[in-house]
Amino acid sequence: MTPSEVLLSEIRAQPEVWRAALERRDAVAATAARLAAAPPTLVRVAGHGTSDHAAIYASYLLRLLCGWTVVRDSISLPLYYGLPAAKPGELAIGISQSGETPDVVEWLRAAKAGGATTLAVTNGERSALADAADHLLPVGAGAEQSIAATKTYTGTLVAFALLAGALAGRGDQLAAGVAEAADAADATLPGLERAVEPVAEALAPAQRMYLSARGLELATAYEISLKLTEVCYVGAKAMSATAMAHGPVAALDETLPVWLIAARDATLPAVREAAQRAIAARAPVVASGAAAGQLEGAAHVLQTPALGEPLLSPLLSVLPGQLFAVALAHAKGIDPGAPRHLRKVTSAA
Amino acid sequence: MTPSEVLLSEIRAQPEVWRAALERRDAVAATAARLAAAPPTLVRVAGHGTSDHAAIYASYLLRLLCGWTVVRDSISLPLYYGLPAAKPGELAIGISQSGETPDVVEWLRAAKAGGATTLAVTNGERSALADAADHLLPVGAGAEQSIAATKTYTGTLVAFALLAGALAGRGDQLAAGVAEAADAADATLPGLERAVEPVAEALAPAQRMYLSARGLELATAYEISLKLTEVCYVGAKAMSATAMAHGPVAALDETLPVWLIAARDATLPAVREAAQRAIAARAPVVASGAAAGQLEGAAHVLQTPALGEPLLSPLLSVLPGQLFAVALAHAKGIDPGAPRHLRKVTSAA
Repeated sequence: MTPSEVLLSEIRAQPEVWRAALERRDAVAATAARLAAAPPTLVRVAGHGTSDHAAIYASYLLRLLCGWTVVRDSISLPLYYGLPAAKPGELAIGISQSGETPDVVEWLRAAKAGGATTLAVTNGERSALADAADHLLPVGAGAEQSIAATKTYTGTLVAFALLAGALAGRGDQLAAGVAEAADAADATLPGLERAVEPVAEALAPAQRMYLSARGLELATAYEISLKLTEVCYVGAKAMSATAMAHGPVAALDETLPVWLIAARDATLPAVREAAQRAIAARAPVVASGAAAGQLEGAAHVLQTPALGEPLLSPLLSVLPGQLFAVALAHAKGIDPGAPRHLRKVTSAA
Repeated sequence: MTPSEVLLSEIRAQPEVWRAALERRDAVAATAARLAAAPPTLVRVAGHGTSDHAAIYASYLLRLLCGWTVVRDSISLPLYYGLPAAKPGELAIGISQSGETPDVVEWLRAAKAGGATTLAVTNGERSALADAADHLLPVGAGAEQSIAATKTYTGTLVAFALLAGALAGRGDQLAAGVAEAADAADATLPGLERAVEPVAEALAPAQRMYLSARGLELATAYEISLKLTEVCYVGAKAMSATAMAHGPVAALDETLPVWLIAARDATLPAVREAAQRAIAARAPVVASGAAAGQLEGAAHVLQTPALGEPLLSPLLSVLPGQLFAVALAHAKGIDPGAPRHLRKVTSAA
């Protein structure tokens, strides 16, 4: 397979990764029981790039399902400024696909030294991060060859969904939801692969793009932004639908497309307002997500199915973005499987 | 004055705004004493755009000086998903230049209803936000006419610095540092105004730009990014120096300049590594901040003075970015004082 075909195959493999996670439910429930024995006063999370976007999702999910407040914490404060990373009674979660991201590992060790309970969320079950942590939540996505993370991203979301479900006594419901999402993804992926092609052709000249959402789908906006940046070299920027009105809207014109992820929940009016402002500024709007059809006037619509468990919608709403990144790279004449200047495990300090 | 001249005059007025804040020191100390009477278990902050960037600075400062953990909190969880905004024992800080940003006001009211102590940080001393809060930390920057916030941004940083200093029993030291920063800014601004001109000429064709730092200067990267977006319509994206290595580096080439803010502290090696990666990818690098001279190979250097109190460096390091935004707009043929599609008080839901 070419690198581009490998990337596509990893995108298509996601429903299988999610189903495989369901087979580890008992282990997740056992981890949840150990964590729930002493509910944390505060949850601190650290990760970079795609792992940070999974942390955004986790921050919404753990608060919505468990009432736990989550800080996407500064790594530099303990590592460079010498502060305690965490306190006793807190839960520190390190997220890293490889489990080898140096400063995330070091941060988790510092949190443990500070007295916090520590959890590693990683696809590297035998890794420095897993070794450093009290508890392990494996992602179990299998080897990911592409530099652009796809199945490890949604695999991490599923891991958090199963954990938060178990913590909230809603494990069965979330597990059923993951199974439903996997079936919906299988049913939707072939159509989406075709649907993104004309959008990529239309937006091929774009050098900049905004990605926006509000609430639970914010993680999706950030993750699609990163895919477009690393796979297609687009200057893509994610922001909340409300933040867009606080300045970035000024840059909008017909050369700056706006990709909006619309959820079927109370955030929809804010996303609709962002769509109207983008359209008024003549920006091409891509409407995506489960409520894509409700963003009137969008130039392009990439709808994803509504799920019985709306907390799992981000599993589906990222799919058109992943596929669009591949299609846009092709439309731009870039090999989406071989991003420049990148290694798979990032070792930057 | 033209809108462009008004913007420049507001940039130049900043040292005076900072000095004026020193005259309110007693009131700030009284507010600090009331807050310190019951140290918060957690600090939650909400704000949009420039106010959110001030929140980044506050999150570092309150942790470094007081050991308080700060969450830049989700507004949507209480407003759209119905969760409690805060708990008793917590401190909720709403930041808004006008004091009229609707969802920040609503969020602060929800935090108060949840039992938290509330603090308004605003340039609008008679505003809905000030009315809603238990305590007020005025910014006192005077009327800001330009849509692009400049003196209210650094005015908010100074307010937080004086508050955190008072909380930490280091009020005199921080106040002296603010006075030193004002003098240094007065001495530096005229030279910086000239120094940004050739940089703006060289980078005039840029449609995209990365802004990056690590640690305390991260707020500066985000704030300059927003100025470039709203004043010059650049697709500007801020990220930590480490996050850049996790994907965005792939997009770098000679058409994508990277502006790095280098501090004289332990984060410098991480920023130097980011500079080396950007240069290796042939990106034009602008080295800025108090340690700008230590980023070898940068195409442009915009050095700011080192201060006796390094926690106040972000007051100076944002100045070249503000001035560059004006110069770049002129170089692009845009009126920097009249951004498209924007009103001064943002009323988006």
